[in-house]
Amino acid sequence: MISQKWLKLIKSLQVKKYRKMEQSFVVEGGKNVLELLQSGYEIRLLLATADFQRQYEAMILNRKNAATQAAVEIVSEADLARAGGLQTNNAALAVAVMQPNLAIMPSASSLLLAMDGIQDPGNLGTIIRIADWYGIAGIICSDDTVDLHNPKTIAASMGSFTRMPLYYTCLVEYLKESATLTTVYGAFLEGDDVHSAGFAQAGIVVMGNEAHGIREEIVPYVGRKIHIPRYGGAESLNVGVATAIICDNWRRTNGPPAPEGGEAPPPTPPRKGGEF
Amino acid sequence: MISQKWLKLIKSLQVKKYRKMEQSFVVEGGKNVLELLQSGYEIRLLLATADFQRQYEAMILNRKNAATQAAVEIVSEADLARAGGLQTNNAALAVAVMQPNLAIMPSASSLLLAMDGIQDPGNLGTIIRIADWYGIAGIICSDDTVDLHNPKTIAASMGSFTRMPLYYTCLVEYLKESATLTTVYGAFLEGDDVHSAGFAQAGIVVMGNEAHGIREEIVPYVGRKIHIPRYGGAESLNVGVATAIICDNWRRTNGPPAPEGGEAPPPTPPRKGGEF
Repeated sequence: MISQKWLKLIKSLQVKKYRKMEQSFVVEGGKNVLELLQSGYEIRLLLATADFQRQYEAMILNRKNAATQAAVEIVSEADLARAGGLQTNNAALAVAVMQPNLAIMPSASSLLLAMDGIQDPGNLGTIIRIADWYGIAGIICSDDTVDLHNPKTIAASMGSFTRMPLYYTCLVEYLKESATLTTVYGAFLEGDDVHSAGFAQAGIVVMGNEAHGIREEIVPYVGRKIHIPRYGGAESLNVGVATAIICDNWRRTNGPPAPEGGEAPPPTPPRKGGEF
Repeated sequence: MISQKWLKLIKSLQVKKYRKMEQSFVVEGGKNVLELLQSGYEIRLLLATADFQRQYEAMILNRKNAATQAAVEIVSEADLARAGGLQTNNAALAVAVMQPNLAIMPSASSLLLAMDGIQDPGNLGTIIRIADWYGIAGIICSDDTVDLHNPKTIAASMGSFTRMPLYYTCLVEYLKESATLTTVYGAFLEGDDVHSAGFAQAGIVVMGNEAHGIREEIVPYVGRKIHIPRYGGAESLNVGVATAIICDNWRRTNGPPAPEGGEAPPPTPPRKGGEF
């Protein structure tokens, strides 16, 4: 059984206002909580099924012994389903403390993504996961982009939120300053084909709002217009899918990230399942 | 007001058993219903808001005059929300008649996709939309792949279900026969990098189940193993995103589809909004 105190906190964190007040957010599902346990995030509460607790005992114990102790409670799957927003969760749920909104400067050696008013939390989470896969240096979000700490964003990121830096700011001002330092890419109908455009190693790619695209005030700072070629009948691609294709074409042109300190990049670890 | 008779039918079509019994399925949202109106699908019922009806009057009238008449009722947004599964639908909902499950043979000039037990309806719908964008010739689905007519699949396809042929069959048998005729691609850790692998113009790409990947019985028929290179920390990509990246790399290698009868492919029409 989850105590009423914790249940009330978890429920309140579905709402942005209370997340801000508590400076906390909810992380659900085994994969997501495992990544959280291995990250630098402070954890206030961990609810785990007995199975999850047994399987990751050492990792959880480590956390309990950390300077700031997390409350750990063993709960049933029914408890998890009642507390959280996922339809199925047979593993764990955690309440973590937000990290500060640190500025991300344009990188000299990597691509950044910029979200111009992305509204769907699933889309933002998917984009965080894609950015993490492709080794993007960070994501700049306009102030009106959906909240990173929305439970659906966190869920869709599949743990990648622990690794990918996000910075919420006035995107118009950010791009105005950045445009003098690096190339700002944006997708437009009349843009260059991403297959032949050739990407620089560094730059910022602006992804527009799902319904309205890139806002007018940002257009003057887009130095390079690109587009994804269409070969069939569909009118559009989802913004997450479009981000993936742009990142893939950027990597195809520029290769793997430059190793730091002359070390080789880490090899691909074994992965389970059909997702790639 | 929607009559109880129609409301009961629409609700029952959320369930596969009743869809099969009625040979009918639900199409929701303005974009999806517009595409349906322009397709060869027979329509049993169209619920439209007064605004939608006014805007597309000629198209709807065309349908009413067709040999098989569709019942058309003007309803409120509240009615649409009550009848359907979408949170917001300010336009229309239709009940359409299923089309027969026609066999798709391996193409000599195009790629096919094969779904090996895809379970999430949103993933299948997204893949249909991507396949339509990239001009894929058709999608072969294992018998245990999620239903094309699931309302969430139809919604995520954004109208592309009207153009993309799908064929449900025993995928093991299908690939056993096809492997002698064309190249079967499948994603595996030890596969060739999609950036440098080079794709043939024709072939079949097998996409594995979200949790378990490509099933054992299919592996012997995969003639060419491929993988999407990873540059960062994320462990996996969503199956829809992976499909998009494979299709994009295939097109990047092989260019646009060969024009039929010597005609040039149609130009990209103008698109609205931020989705590409």
